[in-house]
Amino acid sequence: MTTLSINAERLLGRLCDLGQIGRDGDGRLVRLAGSDSDKAGRDAVVAWIRSAGLEVTVDRIGNIFGIWRTADNADEAPILLGSHIDTVIDAGIYDGCYGVLSGLEVIETLKAAGYAPARPVAVAAFTNEEGVRYAPDMMGSLVYAGGLPVEEALATVGTDGAILGAELERIGYAGSEEPSLIRPHAYVELHIEQGPVLEREGVPIGAVENLQGISWQRITIKGEANHAGTTPMSMRRDAGHAAARVVTFLRDRARNANTPTVATVGCMSFEPNAINVIPSRATFTVDLRDPDEQRLQTEEAVLAAYLEELAAAEEVTISVERLARFKPVTFDRGIVELVEEASRKRGLASKRMTSGAGHDAQMIARIAPSAMIFVPSLDGISHNPREHTPDADLVAGANILLDVTATLAAR
Amino acid sequence: MTTLSINAERLLGRLCDLGQIGRDGDGRLVRLAGSDSDKAGRDAVVAWIRSAGLEVTVDRIGNIFGIWRTADNADEAPILLGSHIDTVIDAGIYDGCYGVLSGLEVIETLKAAGYAPARPVAVAAFTNEEGVRYAPDMMGSLVYAGGLPVEEALATVGTDGAILGAELERIGYAGSEEPSLIRPHAYVELHIEQGPVLEREGVPIGAVENLQGISWQRITIKGEANHAGTTPMSMRRDAGHAAARVVTFLRDRARNANTPTVATVGCMSFEPNAINVIPSRATFTVDLRDPDEQRLQTEEAVLAAYLEELAAAEEVTISVERLARFKPVTFDRGIVELVEEASRKRGLASKRMTSGAGHDAQMIARIAPSAMIFVPSLDGISHNPREHTPDADLVAGANILLDVTATLAAR
Repeated sequence: MTTLSINAERLLGRLCDLGQIGRDGDGRLVRLAGSDSDKAGRDAVVAWIRSAGLEVTVDRIGNIFGIWRTADNADEAPILLGSHIDTVIDAGIYDGCYGVLSGLEVIETLKAAGYAPARPVAVAAFTNEEGVRYAPDMMGSLVYAGGLPVEEALATVGTDGAILGAELERIGYAGSEEPSLIRPHAYVELHIEQGPVLEREGVPIGAVENLQGISWQRITIKGEANHAGTTPMSMRRDAGHAAARVVTFLRDRARNANTPTVATVGCMSFEPNAINVIPSRATFTVDLRDPDEQRLQTEEAVLAAYLEELAAAEEVTISVERLARFKPVTFDRGIVELVEEASRKRGLASKRMTSGAGHDAQMIARIAPSAMIFVPSLDGISHNPREHTPDADLVAGANILLDVTATLAAR
Repeated sequence: MTTLSINAERLLGRLCDLGQIGRDGDGRLVRLAGSDSDKAGRDAVVAWIRSAGLEVTVDRIGNIFGIWRTADNADEAPILLGSHIDTVIDAGIYDGCYGVLSGLEVIETLKAAGYAPARPVAVAAFTNEEGVRYAPDMMGSLVYAGGLPVEEALATVGTDGAILGAELERIGYAGSEEPSLIRPHAYVELHIEQGPVLEREGVPIGAVENLQGISWQRITIKGEANHAGTTPMSMRRDAGHAAARVVTFLRDRARNANTPTVATVGCMSFEPNAINVIPSRATFTVDLRDPDEQRLQTEEAVLAAYLEELAAAEEVTISVERLARFKPVTFDRGIVELVEEASRKRGLASKRMTSGAGHDAQMIARIAPSAMIFVPSLDGISHNPREHTPDADLVAGANILLDVTATLAAR
């Protein structure tokens, strides 16, 4: 038996075409959820789904489904492939789109080859994964998985004041189906890694076995503003210095622990922010991630204890605001093993790994066995026009998705 | 012999009156150099100088002198007392004004008591000490001491676009005398401490023996922006973390050294300043001060070496921009001892100390023996409406200035 493969030219061509839709006046790729450019991107994807002979369904939150059903399998729960096509501001062309277009590509390939699946196979493009215009992110898949009432999601007010439900109506993507209409038998999402691990290790396929839990906090330290020249070191209550202590504490702890914990302080501001005034206030964010919920809780507790100790030692007051918290997600071991097996058969190295970013798959994992496949991101760059994955890796990843889908759909 | 003392009611009343001149619509005290409110403050001071029967002279940079000369001492170099009456935005009422009004008070007291000085005694109000509208600060005394050509100073463009020379003309304080007209025999400046040392130690009089050297630098660290979730700790080039390392390094070094070195990081900013992005750039300021030039140079060199080491260890690039650099000033030992002696005689505790802030005295020290007298600042607060010194301390300080002046003027 010859190994079936996807049509590389068609997949790469569509990725490139979709990547040209939604350029702003400065040439930046911007397709925010519910916008005119989102509509243009959706229209292109729907046209490709129709041209593949699939049935198109749009649910109330605007999730698009392209379903390949046969008379023999119409009553079975489908294998669902997918991701999203909305983007950040000044995006690359791969994030999300690669998963949606590869899902469609896999279905077209199987269909054209005369493959007779035991289950329907469907591709999904979920609404508002990026969360740039409407919070929370991963909204479409969250609603789909029953984690957020559709009415509440539709009532969300965007950063520009526009209501999501009205925007979906306006662009013609407020569907009539309940978001829960299709309960998948399994879900597989192919995605660029958005991190440097696969490229640096020279491994083309990531078999994503879990997704990190995320803890976001905003920390405010209050000290006392004073003259930088006249206040002895021993009499200072320096909020900026205390904030710096937290940054180095988190870094040293995460760096020296032999665990996958990552800790990041991305935002920082001092007040009054004057060269000759000791900072009275420092505000910063802490982003903690770990694939293990118990360890994530431990890291949160260790930080809280450190802050208490620091407040006493530096005579500052510290307040903490929780901004977001997601538990880690463990993907389906069976699907992960299928990814590894498919890679072996195609002579491709694979690596079990953790997703550091959030993805639609983490929502779908609530209702169906799910997993992800990663391909390398050059220099780990994403959410940036420099986002890039070599064509050979894109094609390899889609072929692994093809093999995994064929196996899953045969059962 | 009864000890002569200043007229407390007159001094405190004038301080209060001057403090009401130049309130803005929000009630904030703002008398920026060359402004209408500066004119109003100057007019009040000149009126008080005239009412004391002194000769008023204004030089080309707008410095105001009130001179008490007698037929017997007219050829001698004068004892000069003084400070400034311009303010920061939202200022307290003591900074600068206390020194000018006390200088006038001392002269009036000596004159009224029939004291016959061997030298003229003069009070000066120097232009633009604060440097808020026009840079550099301490401009009037710098020009007076020959450190900046008067033409260059007059051509300075303010933050609001107005030229200092034109503004002085406009408010009637562009004098005709060359700034160097009066070469003082000695200079004494009475000032609030603007720091917490005297208050915390319960000492009413500071005998200021030197003034810290100041080194201001802006440091920019460039790393690499990357996803906070997908970039392992070992693969990060985190500019924010590197900046935090510098903050804690400076603090630990200054805190643990048994020296008067102070180090402050007052300004800090991260880019892109997003919660889930590793900072690609951190920009911050370093304010280093030390009364000893050799030690200040050592601290600068130690920081430079640390930055080099840090750049290599963290794979970041670091650039340093020098913003300001003043050498330390050593005041005249003889005058400092007179301050101590006068305090002893009045039964007041005194403490030799270093000025952490810059003052006009540091400029005058270039051309004449100079020193300063400090009185306590509650909580060390200054440049703030909460700036406060108890009346008893204000009166005590002015009496010490009286005694020191009488001794200096007798020689």
